[in-house]
Amino acid sequence: MEQSFSPFGLRAQALFRALQSRLCEELAELDGKARFWLDAWDRPGGGGGHTAVIADGDLFEKGGVSWSAVWGEFDDETTARLERSQPAETPGRQFFATGISIVLHPRNPYVPTVHANFRYLERGADSWFGGGSDLTPVYPTLEDAKAFHAAWKAVCDRHDPSYYPRFKRWCDEYFYLPHRDETRGVGGIFFDDLRGDQNALLDFVRDCGETFMPAYAPIAQRRRSQPYGDTERYFQQLRRGRYAEFNLVYDRGTAFGLATRGRTESILMSLPPVARWEYGWQPTPGSREEQALKFFTPRDWLSEREGETPSGRSPHRPNELTST
Amino acid sequence: MEQSFSPFGLRAQALFRALQSRLCEELAELDGKARFWLDAWDRPGGGGGHTAVIADGDLFEKGGVSWSAVWGEFDDETTARLERSQPAETPGRQFFATGISIVLHPRNPYVPTVHANFRYLERGADSWFGGGSDLTPVYPTLEDAKAFHAAWKAVCDRHDPSYYPRFKRWCDEYFYLPHRDETRGVGGIFFDDLRGDQNALLDFVRDCGETFMPAYAPIAQRRRSQPYGDTERYFQQLRRGRYAEFNLVYDRGTAFGLATRGRTESILMSLPPVARWEYGWQPTPGSREEQALKFFTPRDWLSEREGETPSGRSPHRPNELTST
Repeated sequence: MEQSFSPFGLRAQALFRALQSRLCEELAELDGKARFWLDAWDRPGGGGGHTAVIADGDLFEKGGVSWSAVWGEFDDETTARLERSQPAETPGRQFFATGISIVLHPRNPYVPTVHANFRYLERGADSWFGGGSDLTPVYPTLEDAKAFHAAWKAVCDRHDPSYYPRFKRWCDEYFYLPHRDETRGVGGIFFDDLRGDQNALLDFVRDCGETFMPAYAPIAQRRRSQPYGDTERYFQQLRRGRYAEFNLVYDRGTAFGLATRGRTESILMSLPPVARWEYGWQPTPGSREEQALKFFTPRDWLSEREGETPSGRSPHRPNELTST
Repeated sequence: MEQSFSPFGLRAQALFRALQSRLCEELAELDGKARFWLDAWDRPGGGGGHTAVIADGDLFEKGGVSWSAVWGEFDDETTARLERSQPAETPGRQFFATGISIVLHPRNPYVPTVHANFRYLERGADSWFGGGSDLTPVYPTLEDAKAFHAAWKAVCDRHDPSYYPRFKRWCDEYFYLPHRDETRGVGGIFFDDLRGDQNALLDFVRDCGETFMPAYAPIAQRRRSQPYGDTERYFQQLRRGRYAEFNLVYDRGTAFGLATRGRTESILMSLPPVARWEYGWQPTPGSREEQALKFFTPRDWLSEREGETPSGRSPHRPNELTST
């Protein structure tokens, strides 16, 4: 066998693959109408993946759960690129990467888009984990933001009390559009370069994988029957424009994937079904759309209380925001 | 007056501004229903612009003609970025930039999207012109591609017989999506770093500005009444997804503008009104959509004849492609 992945790498890829199978079953059950179809692919340089996609469901307009395990040798250009962005102590060219990526764009504008990604990487003698999960509502509510963060804080706290505060801040910083001065959504957790006891880290990432459904499904269930019309769909499409902007301009995984000629369809699986851009769009003063925009700034959701004002933005009253 | 722009810079900005006024009039007349509205803005570091936008017209679903004249001093980060991409002989920090940018997204999928940009820049003691115009049809025809290229070749040839072949190839190379292995459209001309006799170059750019309407309007008129349905709109939105991908991932002007904290709405004016992404979309064999995709590869449109096969793609018959 030409490939040289480690026994631990094998365990990680098996974990992510099992997680993909289970999530596809559970998400299809949650949707209630559409099923995932599996697109298996090989990577010419080594490895491959299974991209599972769902479309035109009762809940999900477009989504995917992608698993991959790829390996090989970085070429000169990629090695130079990596050295610029993250100089390695052991700058080997041999790499192994396995992970799972989940992006779900619901049709109902009241149901938030959700994203999660967990990955394990080896480069030369070095290895590390990365991942996270974040929520991107169109019409955010304090109730949903609190519930989502509480779920991720709980899993973090079970493994390391320093995780949640660090990973929550990291998420706010990562999913940020400087040209809009707004976060992509209400955040969650994000981590990278996580090194240490590999078994303990794999346990943490397994726990995270098992947290995804309990963190998201109750929010989707709570909002999916809420009636909406053209106004809400229009605003949803504008917000999806911002989602596309983030993924195409700033997301490091997307940039790396496209620059290294990864598999385009799997890399861009995250893009929304329909996105809209309108020059100089502004919300009507006092509208729910104006209220929504106030959520797209880093906030400590779990300690957020009625009447508090997020720093740097105009005052708002969270109790109004949560009423629908 | 704090600002130090040259007498020539003043002439260039006046030319572009006059061109903007005239184009807005002529394009509104071509549209027949909507009018441009002007959004004037100041740039905190110096200068400003007039962004003229049109929406929900009879012909144009979304479009803009943007003029700007900005000046100032590059900060450390921008200077370093510029030195990496284009090391200057006289790496001054003082800059002056003026230009006009045109992007029009018609509603009817048979009418091509069109883009043009002309600009004059000074940096320290250095100065140069850049610009070009390219056509992005959803359902390309050989007739339109030939007519568009013929117009730009004519204006190029009046100034320098080497221009069209160089600028045509440059356009094909610039408006290219490596991750899709396709060009953004059927090309046109693109040039940058054009230095020499400033008056002669300004004449060339003025001539280009005057070529825009004669190059585009006949194509729009020819196609605007062609009936279309949901299939054509769907394909148009998928193609607009590619347009958004190019502009957000590869366009140097967009990247530079966002990285240097330019005016977001003016930078992203070029984005389509509505874009769509579908995982793994493939055209139906034998469909007009499949034929359309064969145009998105560099071809010498002006010498293209019936029965010829573009290199690197599957065979096609251009006479079928031009029939509608």
